[in-house]
Amino acid sequence: MSGRQTPEPALDRQGDCSTGPRDEGAADGIQHSHRMLSFSDALLSIIATVMILPVTHMEITPEQGDAASAGGSPLGSLPAAPEHPQKSDKSVQNLLATRIAVYLMTFLIVTVAWAAHTRLFQIVGKIDDTLALLNLACMMTITFLPFTFSLMVTFPEVPLGIFLFCVCVIAIGAIQALIVVYAFHFPHLLSPQIEGSAHRAPHRRHILGIILQGPTLCLAAAGFSLFFYPASYLLMATVVFLPYISKAAGWCRDRLAGSREPPAHSLEFTFDLHEPLSKERVEAFSDGVYAIVATLLILDICEDNVPDPKEVKAKFGGSLVAALGTSGPQFLAYFGSFVTVGLLWFAHHSLFLHIRKVTRPMGLLNTLSLAFVGGLPLAYQQTSAFEKQSPRELESVRVSCAIIFFASIFQFAIWTTALLQEGETLQPSARFGGREHAFMFAKLALYPCASLLAFASTCILSRFSTAIFHVMQIAVPFAFLLLRLLVRLALAALRALRGLARPGRTQPAPRAMDDARAPLLPAPC
Amino acid sequence: MSGRQTPEPALDRQGDCSTGPRDEGAADGIQHSHRMLSFSDALLSIIATVMILPVTHMEITPEQGDAASAGGSPLGSLPAAPEHPQKSDKSVQNLLATRIAVYLMTFLIVTVAWAAHTRLFQIVGKIDDTLALLNLACMMTITFLPFTFSLMVTFPEVPLGIFLFCVCVIAIGAIQALIVVYAFHFPHLLSPQIEGSAHRAPHRRHILGIILQGPTLCLAAAGFSLFFYPASYLLMATVVFLPYISKAAGWCRDRLAGSREPPAHSLEFTFDLHEPLSKERVEAFSDGVYAIVATLLILDICEDNVPDPKEVKAKFGGSLVAALGTSGPQFLAYFGSFVTVGLLWFAHHSLFLHIRKVTRPMGLLNTLSLAFVGGLPLAYQQTSAFEKQSPRELESVRVSCAIIFFASIFQFAIWTTALLQEGETLQPSARFGGREHAFMFAKLALYPCASLLAFASTCILSRFSTAIFHVMQIAVPFAFLLLRLLVRLALAALRALRGLARPGRTQPAPRAMDDARAPLLPAPC
Repeated sequence: MSGRQTPEPALDRQGDCSTGPRDEGAADGIQHSHRMLSFSDALLSIIATVMILPVTHMEITPEQGDAASAGGSPLGSLPAAPEHPQKSDKSVQNLLATRIAVYLMTFLIVTVAWAAHTRLFQIVGKIDDTLALLNLACMMTITFLPFTFSLMVTFPEVPLGIFLFCVCVIAIGAIQALIVVYAFHFPHLLSPQIEGSAHRAPHRRHILGIILQGPTLCLAAAGFSLFFYPASYLLMATVVFLPYISKAAGWCRDRLAGSREPPAHSLEFTFDLHEPLSKERVEAFSDGVYAIVATLLILDICEDNVPDPKEVKAKFGGSLVAALGTSGPQFLAYFGSFVTVGLLWFAHHSLFLHIRKVTRPMGLLNTLSLAFVGGLPLAYQQTSAFEKQSPRELESVRVSCAIIFFASIFQFAIWTTALLQEGETLQPSARFGGREHAFMFAKLALYPCASLLAFASTCILSRFSTAIFHVMQIAVPFAFLLLRLLVRLALAALRALRGLARPGRTQPAPRAMDDARAPLLPAPC
Repeated sequence: MSGRQTPEPALDRQGDCSTGPRDEGAADGIQHSHRMLSFSDALLSIIATVMILPVTHMEITPEQGDAASAGGSPLGSLPAAPEHPQKSDKSVQNLLATRIAVYLMTFLIVTVAWAAHTRLFQIVGKIDDTLALLNLACMMTITFLPFTFSLMVTFPEVPLGIFLFCVCVIAIGAIQALIVVYAFHFPHLLSPQIEGSAHRAPHRRHILGIILQGPTLCLAAAGFSLFFYPASYLLMATVVFLPYISKAAGWCRDRLAGSREPPAHSLEFTFDLHEPLSKERVEAFSDGVYAIVATLLILDICEDNVPDPKEVKAKFGGSLVAALGTSGPQFLAYFGSFVTVGLLWFAHHSLFLHIRKVTRPMGLLNTLSLAFVGGLPLAYQQTSAFEKQSPRELESVRVSCAIIFFASIFQFAIWTTALLQEGETLQPSARFGGREHAFMFAKLALYPCASLLAFASTCILSRFSTAIFHVMQIAVPFAFLLLRLLVRLALAALRALRGLARPGRTQPAPRAMDDARAPLLPAPC
């Protein structure tokens, strides 16, 4: 087993979720942070995704004017949209573009907060009760970000939204700094690399410096918001893109000055923005996004598609089946969307099974993919609301296709990025020439191709409808299984041919599979 | 380290989430099921909890009559409730009691589905792509349960709701049976105990029998629903309580017939309803519930408390600060509720850190505790909606106190139940006489005491208000930290006294803690 990877130190800390190691520390109130991190991931992913609801609300209300503001509720106002079929396609497109841009920005803010949290707990390896409570305080402040964001979108000219946003970021920074100071005060809480380091004091300064960059900029932004708010928006954008800006700056510096000598204590530990993210946390965050997106769909169904008893009596003569029949397209849309979300999760799951290490560009691509996944409820509302008017119907199917296309093409991009450094980032079986390489390609290419196909169909076929689109969505898993079968058959044929060439290795038992893979492996890097 | 527990086989399988073991199987398309199970847990916990929203909607609408049905939306209709202050306290109490009972029932249905899923994947140890897709199909069917439930509540006399419910349960059963048949067809997917067993065929029959019990009853219920629906409701209740009924029956039989001889192949593996649940999955499910409850709160804030631009101009002369000031109580309520949810999660986290094995009664108590946690958004809406009228205000604070009391008292009950079999279920440090025993008691007793105190205050103090209640909620974590400090000081004093008695052991280094604990441990069981 020469190719079995040595796990990354950061992964190793989170990998030991068996009960044994927890026992040791629990006696002294010191705990491994695994479960707290899962909980934080769940919270943050839900917050990032739930923010599509206020966005959807904000953008529709001004269009509907007084009718909607009398109706009151955001969720209720969406199905009312088809009452205005006289609106031009152009304005719908603009509206959608704004919506999607605003939502993506929001998603980015929360994922930046999440990435900072991940880096923080790559330094702090264990927690005690005080750290758990500080982390909860940090989560509470982060959950407040969506509200400040809603204020910003509703009142772009009033500086209060951006001021509150800056106050939140400063509070988050202060709590994170407190966590770092506390952990350095009790060094047994730190990750083993830093705990064993001889240079703890410079490490602490370095880490605090990085953590307080964002809050310092926000302090300036909060100041500006009181007299010149456009500067605040500029500073806020800087805060959000800080990791990427600093990375680009570092890259330029490297190019200009040649390869620098590494800093003095880098051999022991680098708290570096270029450091890979913890794979477990990327998975947990992604799972949270997929789970909440799947559930927002059923929430909409439960809210909007349970008929009113009075209406059933008045309109359908008491026949519940007839009443439900009218919302048949919504159910079809729901099942179609669930199948899509489920299979996108499945592709993500298969992909990350073969990934060893998540580099920063892969993390960014994953965030972009998740942002589009979070947009799927929008696509669902589009296709279920406009099921009757033909021009709008095609429009909405196209938007759905575009969202699905981008969500899946970014997944594909994660894989191609990983292939560029395949020795470091991929398991041997998924590399070029590996056992699963061809199948992984097919799996990840399925949705980009299917969505392009559906998009093309809307342009070519005049009789294309949302119903056909949803039936297509539901048919995809069967295409998937068929694909699996075909790839399996092709591989079996290939193996049989190879078996004829080398008669000693025809039938490896399932248990001996990993030995059989050994010749394919490169030397450990 | 004589007392270090040998992990349970089922836990062991899920504990190995380090990347090493995954690598082995991934090459052949066979994967450890860890991530798929986390995703399923997240989905199921969200579905169980999200169902409080339709319940809240259903029960308020008939009270409000035509005004609400014109307003349209479920979320929007709640804050409108204080427009009817003439309703008697009695009817509000009845309404709340119905609501809570209905919600609890729903929660139970989903947790029963979750428990069945847990047991199923204690048998199926690994997954491949087909099983992952079947699992997604199972999840899709389960997400549809809330809708059938909504139909049942809205139209209790129309049998369609119960018919659809039964169809869903039958579909779930069929998919689960398919999973079992598939896994037995490829035995390397089974958990190691069954894979190595010589009696696989009887195991399969036994397991299929148990899985198909519920669907068979539901088939009968679906039949009855066509001509005599009350029998369907009865059968449905039987399905939900099946595990408890069978457990009670088994217990009675044991009492009457004396201890039976165990069945022939029980030494190898028992697929038994009495078997402990996987601790990791109980934790993941609980985390999902806490995370979604915390997020529902901010969703409400984002939906209801962003002022309308027109209203701000008309009522507050364009001053956004003044407009936000009017919803100040809501923000206070939000922070109070978040602190409560956060600390209840924290108590749960601390408790499960010291638990080794989750027995079935502990699982049931955990479900009950979570059901009340899921009710917290109701409490939040209560206390934030009625902040002005005095009799209702006290009423709503009392309801909040009751919900918090039950959520925390069931957590306490988990611990007391665990203490009854402490050798099996608890880590040594949390047992009687263990290092953390007193502190665990204090932690778990905090919320029952605090909520009783708040309840008593509403009866005694005439000037008690929701504002005071929320400030109390926010103050609890500080009480917590103070408590921690006091317990630490007391323990330090105790240890110093013991140190004087035995001069050799005064200052054990933190690393040597687990050696120091060894004398406290009983022999491994």
